[in-house]
Amino acid sequence: MIRVKVVGATGYGGVGITELLLQHPEAKLVSLVAREDVGVPISSVYPHLEGFCDLPVLAADDPRAMEPADVVFFATPDKVGMSAARAELAKGAKVIDYSGDFRFTTIEAYADYATRIGKDPTHASPDLLGRNVYGLAELHRDAIRVSDIVGNPGCFACSCILGMAPAVKQRLVEPHSIICDCKTGVSGAGKKVNATYHYPARYEQMNAYKLAGHQHVCEVERELSLQAGSDIKVTFTAQVMPVCRGILSTLYGNLTRSVTEDELLALYRHFFEDSPFVRVYNSTSSIGTLNVRGTNYCNLVVSVDTRVNRLRVVAHIDNLVKGQAGSALQNMNLMFGFPETTGLDRPGIYP
Amino acid sequence: MIRVKVVGATGYGGVGITELLLQHPEAKLVSLVAREDVGVPISSVYPHLEGFCDLPVLAADDPRAMEPADVVFFATPDKVGMSAARAELAKGAKVIDYSGDFRFTTIEAYADYATRIGKDPTHASPDLLGRNVYGLAELHRDAIRVSDIVGNPGCFACSCILGMAPAVKQRLVEPHSIICDCKTGVSGAGKKVNATYHYPARYEQMNAYKLAGHQHVCEVERELSLQAGSDIKVTFTAQVMPVCRGILSTLYGNLTRSVTEDELLALYRHFFEDSPFVRVYNSTSSIGTLNVRGTNYCNLVVSVDTRVNRLRVVAHIDNLVKGQAGSALQNMNLMFGFPETTGLDRPGIYP
Amino acid sequence: MIRVKVVGATGYGGVGITELLLQHPEAKLVSLVAREDVGVPISSVYPHLEGFCDLPVLAADDPRAMEPADVVFFATPDKVGMSAARAELAKGAKVIDYSGDFRFTTIEAYADYATRIGKDPTHASPDLLGRNVYGLAELHRDAIRVSDIVGNPGCFACSCILGMAPAVKQRLVEPHSIICDCKTGVSGAGKKVNATYHYPARYEQMNAYKLAGHQHVCEVERELSLQAGSDIKVTFTAQVMPVCRGILSTLYGNLTRSVTEDELLALYRHFFEDSPFVRVYNSTSSIGTLNVRGTNYCNLVVSVDTRVNRLRVVAHIDNLVKGQAGSALQNMNLMFGFPETTGLDRPGIYP
Amino acid sequence: MIRVKVVGATGYGGVGITELLLQHPEAKLVSLVAREDVGVPISSVYPHLEGFCDLPVLAADDPRAMEPADVVFFATPDKVGMSAARAELAKGAKVIDYSGDFRFTTIEAYADYATRIGKDPTHASPDLLGRNVYGLAELHRDAIRVSDIVGNPGCFACSCILGMAPAVKQRLVEPHSIICDCKTGVSGAGKKVNATYHYPARYEQMNAYKLAGHQHVCEVERELSLQAGSDIKVTFTAQVMPVCRGILSTLYGNLTRSVTEDELLALYRHFFEDSPFVRVYNSTSSIGTLNVRGTNYCNLVVSVDTRVNRLRVVAHIDNLVKGQAGSALQNMNLMFGFPETTGLDRPGIYP
Repeated sequence: MIRVKVVGATGYGGVGITELLLQHPEAKLVSLVAREDVGVPISSVYPHLEGFCDLPVLAADDPRAMEPADVVFFATPDKVGMSAARAELAKGAKVIDYSGDFRFTTIEAYADYATRIGKDPTHASPDLLGRNVYGLAELHRDAIRVSDIVGNPGCFACSCILGMAPAVKQRLVEPHSIICDCKTGVSGAGKKVNATYHYPARYEQMNAYKLAGHQHVCEVERELSLQAGSDIKVTFTAQVMPVCRGILSTLYGNLTRSVTEDELLALYRHFFEDSPFVRVYNSTSSIGTLNVRGTNYCNLVVSVDTRVNRLRVVAHIDNLVKGQAGSALQNMNLMFGFPETTGLDRPGIYP
Repeated sequence: MIRVKVVGATGYGGVGITELLLQHPEAKLVSLVAREDVGVPISSVYPHLEGFCDLPVLAADDPRAMEPADVVFFATPDKVGMSAARAELAKGAKVIDYSGDFRFTTIEAYADYATRIGKDPTHASPDLLGRNVYGLAELHRDAIRVSDIVGNPGCFACSCILGMAPAVKQRLVEPHSIICDCKTGVSGAGKKVNATYHYPARYEQMNAYKLAGHQHVCEVERELSLQAGSDIKVTFTAQVMPVCRGILSTLYGNLTRSVTEDELLALYRHFFEDSPFVRVYNSTSSIGTLNVRGTNYCNLVVSVDTRVNRLRVVAHIDNLVKGQAGSALQNMNLMFGFPETTGLDRPGIYP
Repeated sequence: MIRVKVVGATGYGGVGITELLLQHPEAKLVSLVAREDVGVPISSVYPHLEGFCDLPVLAADDPRAMEPADVVFFATPDKVGMSAARAELAKGAKVIDYSGDFRFTTIEAYADYATRIGKDPTHASPDLLGRNVYGLAELHRDAIRVSDIVGNPGCFACSCILGMAPAVKQRLVEPHSIICDCKTGVSGAGKKVNATYHYPARYEQMNAYKLAGHQHVCEVERELSLQAGSDIKVTFTAQVMPVCRGILSTLYGNLTRSVTEDELLALYRHFFEDSPFVRVYNSTSSIGTLNVRGTNYCNLVVSVDTRVNRLRVVAHIDNLVKGQAGSALQNMNLMFGFPETTGLDRPGIYP
Repeated sequence: MIRVKVVGATGYGGVGITELLLQHPEAKLVSLVAREDVGVPISSVYPHLEGFCDLPVLAADDPRAMEPADVVFFATPDKVGMSAARAELAKGAKVIDYSGDFRFTTIEAYADYATRIGKDPTHASPDLLGRNVYGLAELHRDAIRVSDIVGNPGCFACSCILGMAPAVKQRLVEPHSIICDCKTGVSGAGKKVNATYHYPARYEQMNAYKLAGHQHVCEVERELSLQAGSDIKVTFTAQVMPVCRGILSTLYGNLTRSVTEDELLALYRHFFEDSPFVRVYNSTSSIGTLNVRGTNYCNLVVSVDTRVNRLRVVAHIDNLVKGQAGSALQNMNLMFGFPETTGLDRPGIYP
């Protein structure tokens, strides 16, 4: 039984990993840390947890929060985990961070990312960079297994990379032709209230945002470039829809040669044959985000627009599970040698 | 490991029990029967089940549907289970029926119910009446344990009875003063399409329906009368709200004597002290249906309008779980001697 | 052409009256006052107004906000209009206030209201009380016509009073038996963000709130008591549903004698025969809040639960129109001698 | 006062034009024709119309439906208007058809369209082709003015063509690089119930559909090719979101030369300077579909992804207004010499 600490426990990312851990047979929550609601049971903040987890929310410097843990999840915004990880590592814990802090492995790559999102380009723990691994299990399973610092992928990034990696790896797509048209549910913006996500302002609203550049572009381009073995640039559009959970990413790329949908299906299925959480469908399937809600699955619908020889992949995930806490638990499983699917092998509920 | 057959497997009630059974350690689905989608895997109808349950949908007379089962769930409308139950019982199976067919234990009570909802008052298996039990575990736990025919409660009824039973049992409420103002999510109407539940007709719509009388009134009055030991009549209003899952029932009754909220809290908590799926809250709690979504819990908020000496209880359930498949599984657990919470002890996900 | 000033122009109540005034042939907006967004055009705050109203948002003390107006709408919270009204009246303007400030006509009644909602019981302009009129046109049409201070009704109150007044006036209902079970859309809580109305916390959420007492109870009891000629007390439950616009109030009262639905229909239709914005339906009608969305109508469905001799009226309004800006404009029409329906005679859009 | 007949009056397209005509000072509805609900007042089908329009729904062959009209709107599916238009034209009426029947001006173009959507390629009135005009006022204002048969644009097509026409006309975009990623509200699928649009199946659902080809592609390509003076092919993705009204189309094209956002803004504003229903915004604007809800506006947000030299335009319309009935009324205004904005110059309501 491994001991787990969650930092940022009162946000959506924190409650998400808490819900999952409660059903994990090999893990036990030992402390919950947050800056808000300190001192109250987490089940007062989230009443559905009553009777399942009534641990108190602790301040970061509470002695009870210093108890040893085997793994610490930083369900925190940028710039938190990068400073706090060292102490946890020193105590022998492994670290899984949700933010951009450990998604990049060089000082330069981090600086480029941080600059693009308008933050200080200096990384607080530059010596840890290189020791960390990008936590998309489907691409870096083996590295994650032996790592003790994992940077969990961005939710949009997860859908875009999984959707394009197989084609890009085969150099089927022109490097600068990729467009990621991404739609997310509102929970992706977190628990913090905001005029844009006030119910009356959102219920019949569809809009694009951050047209000047979204923070997930860096990791999408880095990962796809790694697959391709050459430099890839993408156009990325972030859009919000009036749903709570779900990402629908429609991914386009000009094909470098004629490919049939059947070839693509075979290619994608082969690429993901050892990945239990990816399902691949053809273009006539009736798949939507509701079919992966509450689960760690990424459902991919592949198609070709033969009239213009363009690949189109529609990727579906739950932004709070495969896009966040689910991938984090999948990473924990790998880091501790548990089966990859432990605690995640549930179908969700419908409707 | 008990063997389970589900009849009506392609409706919401069917998929609900299937989802739950997949996570039950002591039960194994052996056959799925329905009238639509016969011959295709259930995971084609409900893609989220892919890899979890790929059993084919069978016609009722398919030989594979005749295989022995230890329990048969009839997730079917009125008038189906009453005819088919006998054969299953004869083969040694226990029966749990979702409809009104086995919610009444006398020919007369059934006829009264059937008449009220405009159906043939004749019960197809009158000899089975009396052998059946009303499947609200919180009130009939012991009888359910020894029964082999359980009539699962109506979703609205479940919330109204649980919300009023403790007060009624203490004769705290005037018998003819009870009002049940009930609001349900749309999934309560099932999977069948209908102009009223077409998304554009529903998204900003709130309305009352069946003002002349709802089919769940009979069982509410019968159960509350049993608790009170005297005849109780209720005014019942069914209303639909633009949510998928959830019932919010606001229950009113004139108090026969002055009672404080604290007394009520104590009374309700005592009443439900052996009921793991009922939680009781005071009037300042921030509880809503989202907090029980996807779970088998019934959360009750009790309060007194002291100005007019009136009891008000707000009951919250997920209509598809505690209001349907969850209660059904809870009944199965009781009938087979499993712990009542097996397969149901999960907090749900938020948001 | 009368000149109109709106104070609190950037809230939902402000934009609501602005939208209506833009289509009123006899009124012209001359200034918009608010505390937020000062200096920007209102069409920057609400882009749908671009080209229709590009007036700047002014601070209350901006000289341009001091220009003469014939009527001032205070679309402001409690305690604003009571202080500011005097100066506007002195300049010859009439005043329509959205808050509780001018809904009561005596110092004592105001103090009772203010105390109940936890505010200072002192009215800032006690000498104006008595000069003001409660602005529910259907009950006080003549008084409004000759008044220069109107207290616009609360949204819930409007639905409850219209739904019960005809029966209460005929003494058909036992005075202390009335229950108002009210469900509102989220826009009723205004534009200000709040954790409860954050989209992910609200989308599948139904909940009751303020169980200890809602601010609209006072005016409901006062108005119904006036109709009845005796003291009436109501139990009032406020509930929020995941819709943007709409109030569904289900109103119950024990009948003092047997009444048929047809009698009730006749009674209600007679009561409202000169009220162009009230429609009365029988219990088999398919009416919901979506049918009055964006309009000034109040649709009432009347029925009798004959088994217990109880009246049940379901009232439907758009909380932002008949429940707020629409009633305000209706009052303005009366105060200036325009036809009551001017600027309000539109059916809305569906779906 | 012109006399108007609506065929297909009971669908969303029919009720949409009815709502608009009720507020048009120069038009009078004289007959409503449909296949369902024949004999009942339209206000029984759509209760919000009660008191505004209580005309009966007539069968097509009802003598009252034969009365002379100055204009007939065919709010009907493909293959209805093409047969019925001739008789109306013979009686002197002008025709505005919502379907694909009159969007193409040659037998070959129609056949190509019909084949692509799996319908009989034969046009029932080939002699009328050529006499008809494509009813997108912003591009064909002058031709519409002198036409008596207008084929109203498809809802998606309207957003794509308006969003790309200015750039394409300047040959700023590579002809085969255009991608139209379109998201629509559910009302676009009409009033007919469907398992996909059943509330529980839709409320948290985002999905793509008709990946093999959508019927609006033909008209998008034809119109953009006309603007460019060369052959243009687009990749088109249709997606449905859980909103009732609204289309968000995100349009991409590779730029043929470097262009700044300011240049684009100037270009777009110049292109639409005589088009009262198009607004152009820069990339930092907070514009969404809720801002055009219930209105005839098309709001365009233009931007450049300078890293890859790609144009991105986000187009926002209400699919039932600018995407359907609003464009139809705009066309009627042009055909009868009324100001283009008559009956359409309203801001809508918010939120």
